[in-house]
Amino acid sequence: MKYLDDFKEGFSETTGSYTVTEDEVVAFARAYDPQPIHTDKAFAAKGLFGGLIASGWQSCGIAMRLLVDHVIKDVAVIASPGVDQIRWLLPVRPGDVLHLKWTILDIRKSTTKPDRGIVRAQSDLINQKDETVMSLVGVTIVLTRPSTPNC
Amino acid sequence: MKYLDDFKEGFSETTGSYTVTEDEVVAFARAYDPQPIHTDKAFAAKGLFGGLIASGWQSCGIAMRLLVDHVIKDVAVIASPGVDQIRWLLPVRPGDVLHLKWTILDIRKSTTKPDRGIVRAQSDLINQKDETVMSLVGVTIVLTRPSTPNC
Repeated sequence: MKYLDDFKEGFSETTGSYTVTEDEVVAFARAYDPQPIHTDKAFAAKGLFGGLIASGWQSCGIAMRLLVDHVIKDVAVIASPGVDQIRWLLPVRPGDVLHLKWTILDIRKSTTKPDRGIVRAQSDLINQKDETVMSLVGVTIVLTRPSTPNC
Repeated sequence: MKYLDDFKEGFSETTGSYTVTEDEVVAFARAYDPQPIHTDKAFAAKGLFGGLIASGWQSCGIAMRLLVDHVIKDVAVIASPGVDQIRWLLPVRPGDVLHLKWTILDIRKSTTKPDRGIVRAQSDLINQKDETVMSLVGVTIVLTRPSTPNC
């Protein structure tokens, strides 16, 4: 298990990949973002982006999935109070193959609870053309390493 | 259809409701946020929140669904460049009945493209106890009303 003490500012990790399918784009959007640009292939083909694009919230979900599978699966995470910023920079389309670059911006130990601290990190979601399609700054509360008893 | 001209700062709208089910919490998390606090009922019961809680990203999806169904379905939205802030304030649990309060913070007409402008709005996701469980500030590009031809 990794703790707050195991990270430092500037630490960066790049994940494996996630392939976006048309079925998943439509299914996600029908549930959470039913705008025709995400759900209606014929409508979307005539629109601004020339085809179906994924909901920006699905891009967030994909980034989170990559983060959980590849970065924080063995980190002592308590919870997340939120996200400081999301920028949807380019459309995500069916067939895209995405990966995540996760970079720690800063680490702050709690002044009131010495067993934890706050990590702010930038998640860049990158496509198969090496274009950053989304960038967000997430905030995560992580436990410090439990002290070893003196014995 | 509503255009940028039809809104003003301080405009607020409250939506209908969305009931969160355990099956949906687990299915969303298995796809996009497979941490045991969201997927494993027995594990979650012993944890910080005393039971399963929804992924924060699912709360974003539910807020978007309420926004699409009740607020922007007849608004001339072009796209969204991003979100300025998300705060996950309280856990969302299976059985919760959520609604959204959407309030316009500011409106800025584009200086370079007179056919559009940017709306910044706060979305507060509120549960059946009238507690705000999530608050986010979204940014949306909206068309101005097309001018009537002089004829």
